Amino acid sequence: MPHLLIRDVSVLIVPESGECRVDEAQDIHIHDDRITAITPTGTTPGGISPGGISPGGMSPGGISSGGATQVGDGAAPTSVEVIDGTGLIAVPGLVNSHTHSPMVMMRGAAEDLSIDDWFNQRIWPMEVNLTPERVRVGARLACAEMVLAGVTTFVDHYFHADQIAAAALESGIRADLAPTFFSSTGQEAIDAAISTARDLHTLGPRITASLGPHATYTVNDDDLRRTAEIARAEGFRIHLHAAETDDQTQSSLDRLGVTPMQVLERIGVLDAGALIAHGCGIREPDLPILERYADRTTVASCPKVYLKLAMGTVTPIKGLQSVGVKVGVGTDGAAVHNTLDVWESLRMVALTQKQREQDAEWMNVSDTLRLATRGGAAAAGLADQLGALEPGRQADIALVDLSGPHCQPVHDPRAALVYSVRSSDVVTVLVAGQVVVRDRQLTTMNLDEVLADAKDLAHTLVDLSKGGAVQHYAP
Amino acid sequence: MPHLLIRDVSVLIVPESGECRVDEAQDIHIHDDRITAITPTGTTPGGISPGGISPGGMSPGGISSGGATQVGDGAAPTSVEVIDGTGLIAVPGLVNSHTHSPMVMMRGAAEDLSIDDWFNQRIWPMEVNLTPERVRVGARLACAEMVLAGVTTFVDHYFHADQIAAAALESGIRADLAPTFFSSTGQEAIDAAISTARDLHTLGPRITASLGPHATYTVNDDDLRRTAEIARAEGFRIHLHAAETDDQTQSSLDRLGVTPMQVLERIGVLDAGALIAHGCGIREPDLPILERYADRTTVASCPKVYLKLAMGTVTPIKGLQSVGVKVGVGTDGAAVHNTLDVWESLRMVALTQKQREQDAEWMNVSDTLRLATRGGAAAAGLADQLGALEPGRQADIALVDLSGPHCQPVHDPRAALVYSVRSSDVVTVLVAGQVVVRDRQLTTMNLDEVLADAKDLAHTLVDLSKGGAVQHYAP
Repeated sequence: MPHLLIRDVSVLIVPESGECRVDEAQDIHIHDDRITAITPTGTTPGGISPGGISPGGMSPGGISSGGATQVGDGAAPTSVEVIDGTGLIAVPGLVNSHTHSPMVMMRGAAEDLSIDDWFNQRIWPMEVNLTPERVRVGARLACAEMVLAGVTTFVDHYFHADQIAAAALESGIRADLAPTFFSSTGQEAIDAAISTARDLHTLGPRITASLGPHATYTVNDDDLRRTAEIARAEGFRIHLHAAETDDQTQSSLDRLGVTPMQVLERIGVLDAGALIAHGCGIREPDLPILERYADRTTVASCPKVYLKLAMGTVTPIKGLQSVGVKVGVGTDGAAVHNTLDVWESLRMVALTQKQREQDAEWMNVSDTLRLATRGGAAAAGLADQLGALEPGRQADIALVDLSGPHCQPVHDPRAALVYSVRSSDVVTVLVAGQVVVRDRQLTTMNLDEVLADAKDLAHTLVDLSKGGAVQHYAP
Repeated sequence: MPHLLIRDVSVLIVPESGECRVDEAQDIHIHDDRITAITPTGTTPGGISPGGISPGGMSPGGISSGGATQVGDGAAPTSVEVIDGTGLIAVPGLVNSHTHSPMVMMRGAAEDLSIDDWFNQRIWPMEVNLTPERVRVGARLACAEMVLAGVTTFVDHYFHADQIAAAALESGIRADLAPTFFSSTGQEAIDAAISTARDLHTLGPRITASLGPHATYTVNDDDLRRTAEIARAEGFRIHLHAAETDDQTQSSLDRLGVTPMQVLERIGVLDAGALIAHGCGIREPDLPILERYADRTTVASCPKVYLKLAMGTVTPIKGLQSVGVKVGVGTDGAAVHNTLDVWESLRMVALTQKQREQDAEWMNVSDTLRLATRGGAAAAGLADQLGALEPGRQADIALVDLSGPHCQPVHDPRAALVYSVRSSDVVTVLVAGQVVVRDRQLTTMNLDEVLADAKDLAHTLVDLSKGGAVQHYAP
């Protein structure tokens, strides 16, 4: 029987292909961490066995929770929380497919800079200031920003990932965390990052880990090869930056005679299974390579960043999808994206993809919503668990209010979700069946305290007085 | 003496050129419709003569309103309303430099279409359904959306402009309205549109009018020439679509041997003073032409639309600015832009301009904020009245809250305004010294009623059963 019922809500149905649709007046039944059934409001749902899935049929061992109107009035043997979804639309919790969450601490501290200066004059010099505490404070703020905006999973790549895990667990958000490493910081640092990834796997169902070599241009072939071996042996995926720009691809061709995708294949990273951040420099000849590993390859697209850093192009999603590679939507770090707002990001994906392909019919609203949900689920390594509101999947749900003047009238709720909604329209958010945001308020953390801590420490992160840098950008 | 004081607020200073800055802890003194002084909080302001400007000095005829802490406690001879600006940043009210406000009624009803299909299969067939009532209902919703988001002026181009004026007056927003006409609808319709423009001029200080020929490809040379003559004789500016895409420019060259800008010069439109919507097809050779009329030419850029319709390029702002042409930021109609959100629009300008010029240092945060304020003021024909928070200018002000988790920590409030802020961060809005939004609520209209009216009529606007179209797109 459900422990939670979202009653009388519109539901965004995101199929694996084709048009999304919105089913109105539905009840979403949730037991433990999963959706157990979605039934029309006012009908008596079929019995729902604990943890089981029987939409529409009476399961012998199940106990009917009664019609929606009886639920919560004491008739049910145990208490069922009812969330009134009237006037709201339930959307699969969004997935931030690529970010560096603690970088919210540098938001606005590196503006209007070329990609070279952004890295070499600001960000990598600033990152000498990282400490576990500062990372945790940043990650707490990031988790707060994301869950309040209906992001229920983030796929992260950063230092001190144990601290990020702690923040994620506190907030209730789901996270796949890749502890970042460079070759330049030596074997000990690499071993420590991999060891952290192993430890993260023990932190419960909402935390998963990937291995996090920074990029093909900051981690050498030997280290990448060893990473791939560990990944294959221990069941990790590899999350890394590759072919971020076409310049990087050209540089790789000039120096090595191969593209970054060819490097990743040769070295075993693609075979292990990879989440490739950005991939704007993936070229046509790379596509047959990626096709061979399409079942375990995802690319995360974060187009606000590509425009802001004038990177010259955006992720070739059409080509990637043509060879079966899944694509998710991300924000990258807020030191360049300025927000962790996946609504903004998915809108930018739609707009920049239409622009890239010179085709206004391409990347339609259904396809865009699918990237931010099912695509993100694949990026998180949880394609069969997240990304759609279906019985058996995790109850990661955002309830969105389309009643604001910027959304009305609603001729097409899918279009409203892609092109009109703001994060502030997210009202209630569930992760794994737990209400983490209720009526636009965090249930798990004290936001004032989170903000105050971030404000107190913000200056320490952007201090350039120490000199040095964690790395040099020369891809 | 002021009738209204915004106390202890940060103030965004937008100079005519160079970097914007934020002055913290300021009091903004407002008398009648104007800013009379901006003084540091806690200092005794200089006397402020009614309607006069004496920031920092005691004016002989002025009556000191006392230090900020005394204001409103009965010591002042007449009541002074005090708005607590603590924790907020005061920004010049944003200007929506080009829109078709009533088209909010078609929001989401024409998605994922080529520009040809968007016009010919949806929008122009839908517009046979326009009635004065439907336009007014749409315009009321549009005005509500805009003022709640800190847009204090909009520059509109649509049919039944008298109804839009009524909505603007009701909401308190400022508007420059151009009654739209085509050549195809005949002389009587053109005369009626021009007559409406004349009538709009009588509606008080918040409403101004421009002449509104639709475009160089829908209004013939004779009608454009006559429009320019009336504009020059009666002091109107001309607001029209021209060189929206490079395809339009190429088509004009192929058919006529001249670009749309050359048409506009030859026919006297540039001489009369023009607001050119979009101008993405303005080419290098057009720039010397526009330079001759730079003192009276503005171009409105609405880049979300250019990407969404896959128009191939965006407004060449760098070239336009190099010849002294002012540029504003707009949303175009919500039937394609889906919102009337100028925050979204200015962010898209920054991002797409960096992309266009392949220069991440170009269109920096200061320049972007200047386009949306001073640039918009020029687009509205009120360059000396709006667009900056300075004594003597109109008190059109948005108070914005940067305390949300998506803006924090704030290393640079200007960057937060361009890259992090959402419209929902706008707390209080003044137009001409009148509080039109207080604590995120409209003071002038009942939002529920506005929304209900729009919802009731929405289906009538998108009805395609009648057949026909107001125009055919074949530029």
